[in-house]
Amino acid sequence: MRVGVLMGSPRDAEAMQPAIDVLERCGLEPDVRVLSAHRTPDQVADLARAARGDGYVAFICGAGMAAALPGAVAANTTLPVVGVPLSGSPLSGTDALYSIVQMPRGVPVATVAIDGAANAALLVVQMLAITDSELAEGLDGERQEMSRRASEHQPRGDS
Amino acid sequence: MRVGVLMGSPRDAEAMQPAIDVLERCGLEPDVRVLSAHRTPDQVADLARAARGDGYVAFICGAGMAAALPGAVAANTTLPVVGVPLSGSPLSGTDALYSIVQMPRGVPVATVAIDGAANAALLVVQMLAITDSELAEGLDGERQEMSRRASEHQPRGDS
Amino acid sequence: MRVGVLMGSPRDAEAMQPAIDVLERCGLEPDVRVLSAHRTPDQVADLARAARGDGYVAFICGAGMAAALPGAVAANTTLPVVGVPLSGSPLSGTDALYSIVQMPRGVPVATVAIDGAANAALLVVQMLAITDSELAEGLDGERQEMSRRASEHQPRGDS
Amino acid sequence: MRVGVLMGSPRDAEAMQPAIDVLERCGLEPDVRVLSAHRTPDQVADLARAARGDGYVAFICGAGMAAALPGAVAANTTLPVVGVPLSGSPLSGTDALYSIVQMPRGVPVATVAIDGAANAALLVVQMLAITDSELAEGLDGERQEMSRRASEHQPRGDS
Amino acid sequence: MRVGVLMGSPRDAEAMQPAIDVLERCGLEPDVRVLSAHRTPDQVADLARAARGDGYVAFICGAGMAAALPGAVAANTTLPVVGVPLSGSPLSGTDALYSIVQMPRGVPVATVAIDGAANAALLVVQMLAITDSELAEGLDGERQEMSRRASEHQPRGDS
Amino acid sequence: MRVGVLMGSPRDAEAMQPAIDVLERCGLEPDVRVLSAHRTPDQVADLARAARGDGYVAFICGAGMAAALPGAVAANTTLPVVGVPLSGSPLSGTDALYSIVQMPRGVPVATVAIDGAANAALLVVQMLAITDSELAEGLDGERQEMSRRASEHQPRGDS
Amino acid sequence: MRVGVLMGSPRDAEAMQPAIDVLERCGLEPDVRVLSAHRTPDQVADLARAARGDGYVAFICGAGMAAALPGAVAANTTLPVVGVPLSGSPLSGTDALYSIVQMPRGVPVATVAIDGAANAALLVVQMLAITDSELAEGLDGERQEMSRRASEHQPRGDS
Amino acid sequence: MRVGVLMGSPRDAEAMQPAIDVLERCGLEPDVRVLSAHRTPDQVADLARAARGDGYVAFICGAGMAAALPGAVAANTTLPVVGVPLSGSPLSGTDALYSIVQMPRGVPVATVAIDGAANAALLVVQMLAITDSELAEGLDGERQEMSRRASEHQPRGDS
Repeated sequence: MRVGVLMGSPRDAEAMQPAIDVLERCGLEPDVRVLSAHRTPDQVADLARAARGDGYVAFICGAGMAAALPGAVAANTTLPVVGVPLSGSPLSGTDALYSIVQMPRGVPVATVAIDGAANAALLVVQMLAITDSELAEGLDGERQEMSRRASEHQPRGDS
Repeated sequence: MRVGVLMGSPRDAEAMQPAIDVLERCGLEPDVRVLSAHRTPDQVADLARAARGDGYVAFICGAGMAAALPGAVAANTTLPVVGVPLSGSPLSGTDALYSIVQMPRGVPVATVAIDGAANAALLVVQMLAITDSELAEGLDGERQEMSRRASEHQPRGDS
Repeated sequence: MRVGVLMGSPRDAEAMQPAIDVLERCGLEPDVRVLSAHRTPDQVADLARAARGDGYVAFICGAGMAAALPGAVAANTTLPVVGVPLSGSPLSGTDALYSIVQMPRGVPVATVAIDGAANAALLVVQMLAITDSELAEGLDGERQEMSRRASEHQPRGDS
Repeated sequence: MRVGVLMGSPRDAEAMQPAIDVLERCGLEPDVRVLSAHRTPDQVADLARAARGDGYVAFICGAGMAAALPGAVAANTTLPVVGVPLSGSPLSGTDALYSIVQMPRGVPVATVAIDGAANAALLVVQMLAITDSELAEGLDGERQEMSRRASEHQPRGDS
Repeated sequence: MRVGVLMGSPRDAEAMQPAIDVLERCGLEPDVRVLSAHRTPDQVADLARAARGDGYVAFICGAGMAAALPGAVAANTTLPVVGVPLSGSPLSGTDALYSIVQMPRGVPVATVAIDGAANAALLVVQMLAITDSELAEGLDGERQEMSRRASEHQPRGDS
Repeated sequence: MRVGVLMGSPRDAEAMQPAIDVLERCGLEPDVRVLSAHRTPDQVADLARAARGDGYVAFICGAGMAAALPGAVAANTTLPVVGVPLSGSPLSGTDALYSIVQMPRGVPVATVAIDGAANAALLVVQMLAITDSELAEGLDGERQEMSRRASEHQPRGDS
Repeated sequence: MRVGVLMGSPRDAEAMQPAIDVLERCGLEPDVRVLSAHRTPDQVADLARAARGDGYVAFICGAGMAAALPGAVAANTTLPVVGVPLSGSPLSGTDALYSIVQMPRGVPVATVAIDGAANAALLVVQMLAITDSELAEGLDGERQEMSRRASEHQPRGDS
Repeated sequence: MRVGVLMGSPRDAEAMQPAIDVLERCGLEPDVRVLSAHRTPDQVADLARAARGDGYVAFICGAGMAAALPGAVAANTTLPVVGVPLSGSPLSGTDALYSIVQMPRGVPVATVAIDGAANAALLVVQMLAITDSELAEGLDGERQEMSRRASEHQPRGDS
């Protein structure tokens, strides 16, 4: 299953890498592209409009500052779009957060934490796991493993 | 398909009603409950832990102020959780927004706009429509209808 | 000379009316349209891409919340785009301000004050007045009249 | 007397160390644990529910970002809970501050300054000193010593 | 047991009433005073310095804007001081919140939510209940009653 | 065509250099000056008042903190003024942004992103290109080139 | 002694009235004028430059939004200038506060609270009272009266 | 003439040095002390109460975080108090700014920019220069010198 991982600039690649890692670990197929709502608006619209037919199941879009990319994708598809506000501007990502989360009625973007690319991918896996019991089991196992590891990190070993 | 629509207080019912309306219009089954991460933590945990087995497919959680409900549900299930920050406190919903969207790695909450309950429900429908072509067609039709209506509202009729 | 006055929703008409008034008073031709970057993205792109050929000289775009409209127009034309952040959301227009002003390098939007539609229109007139001496004289006259009126409003008449 | 010092991640250990130091200096017994409201919710709830019986007298909880830990503990015990918002995210701790301090009626968390772990511990000592005159004398002595030291640091020695 | 309930102005009486109600319901003795760190600094200092000897066990201080009252009390006693930031200024209580919570090392103020007077009183009761098992039982009973009531408020009665 | 590039301090030269580069690349004539609304108010007023007669077509003003320079220029000319809020103060440029964008009715300043000097210059070129078809072609060519380059930066070359 | 009380618009008259009242009560001579840094910049500069010679001893300037008036006066005189940020814009006066208080080195503006006109006048009286013992006695008397009145307002009369 | 330069901690000495430099350059006598509203409240009150009699003419108080020092001094004297909000906390000085500037009616603090110690001292000199024509001439000369120097820093020498 193909998941579009879009970012506004090649400089965002490092911030978005955790999303790619999570998707690959879960057996999904990240399709990574540098596309900009402001610099390459046609390509964004074309990709999004054709997405369901082209086998995409969801999009993860990372963007900073005015951060229009997630909304521009969501405006052109009814596939789920997850937005990752990126920090790095003088406003530390509040600009991107507000630009991504405050979508108007009718065109949602599922927003995660500033620089929260890993969770964006997890969210997509959760969506697919609603109807895919194998993925669901994988998620549950990973969650238990996360809890177990968290419990181990005891400063005094007395958990 | 059962979608939990949770809110921290009966006072939030009006703000969350648009989510219920959207879900029902799309043929889903909203299961509306007043539950609080801080006042009834056990019930939140119990509901979330049993959710996949009990036929839930996703949760929509509205909360204001410290707004821990979406995260508390997400901590206890790997089903997708959509968080709706509610305004109403002196901080106008920035408190709820930050409390909901800034989740740690491993436990995502899909956050929508402040008071954006309708979009929360749409997001859940989009998740289900990934693998449900009927729902997907419904969403696409609704999107086209929304575009058409938006185009009609021309102040001078010259669109 | 045709100036596009775009707004995301018919509810924004009152907030944008001062822009229309200023344009008409200066002899320009406001072309008012309700268009949404998120609800009618194609129409926005089509209008913007054809704008120079269709006789537009500039755009004024009012939008609230994620406020992607000004940037979406600017992404599809190199005509000047003036953005008016609109208040009305729980974030009082900071969301719209950040979404409009924090544009990436290469695609500027000239941003004015929150709810500052009149100034948006004045800015367009100023742009045209660079090479139109009649408009420039009109602006200078209006500025002097504004200063004169401001001077008259003395609480004790001793200016 | 046992005071739980909880933190969401081993990375928070350095920020929380001043709380441990203050507690030990005052003869209290810090019980330090890495526990997460989102990664190990059961353990948090279990610890808090059994706390009074297990000899805890109060909790100090440090957390960053959505910072649900102090509220999750407070939801499961009526022992006093002191919350320490931790900086480190792009929002510099305002996210943690709002998530911790804006608790709903009925479930208080005593919030201290961002990264204010030492004061969190002092607050717990103050609580215990209400009915423990020895601790009270210790606090008063320490306060006088603090005032005396502050007075010594005169740039020109003329205090 | 005497708990000082201090406020900067008679206008704050309504906002602070919930603290008085909670204290009285729990059998404590609220001693309500209008005192200002800026208008009556001597009285604040005198009251705080003599507080332990005068039978006070804690202070609850509500203040808006620069909100120095809680800190001024805390500077003159080592009894626990709970601060309630009050909204009402153009900054909606963020000014009071920052002024109250950002105390320097050595002089803590336990801060609750903006306008959170009821929780301030509950916090004081929790402090006293550490060593007062009757109060502790009362708190636990009240917590269970709160959970029970919260559970009853089900929109569809299916909890 | 002469474009005033003004900045409040020689320390702002690096932040404003991108504006100079863009103007020169487009064949315009940047006239760079260090002028301060607060330190050299007469010179600012004199320059602005005489600007149209002296052959200026627009101004680009970079300023930080209270950032009065763009408004002071705009108060003394009806030529278009573009304001660039500069970061660098503890408020990270929000002070400059608010000071520049929130102009009163009648005296607009076209505001760009914090530290967005390049876009300020592009905006001036766009203004001139309204009536200068050669400049317009240049802008359109540059835009296409920007889109082309953006498309090339594909992490996996599959655009 | 003449104190200039300047405001950007006649709409600010009500907000600035407390400054006039305080000045008159203290025997000073308020000279009230509507002047705008952006609408009537010459008059502002002329008034400020001639101020010392014209018998002014200080200025109180109220302004909202970009709020350049206090700084524009301060740029043209070395008499003390007190700035009053006015609320009323969607940003609730944070725009005016940042625009007034964040002055560059060399040109101070003494800033008071948002809508704090009365304190602005008190500050001017305090400045004059440094060398005017009669004014100083008046201030001290007023301060004692204020403390006395504050003490009277006891909810239970037990101060 | 003696001007108190107070700061909450020896760590603030570097940030406050510019105030001392300006005062000394103008022939005033800075009396520098480390005093804290929260750590040494009595000394602050004693110093302020006796200040007029002890020959002080004004106070400059630098403080960070809850920043109560300027207000605590102002509460105990009617001499002018200038407050300098200091950055350094995770809130970058907004906490100190709000704590210092938002004083209640009756007790003003003249607030300058975050870390604006030099302007605080200039403000005091301006206050004294109201009735001291020598100081006034010095200020005017320094202002002209500042303007002259600012004019010299022309990147292209064409001012």
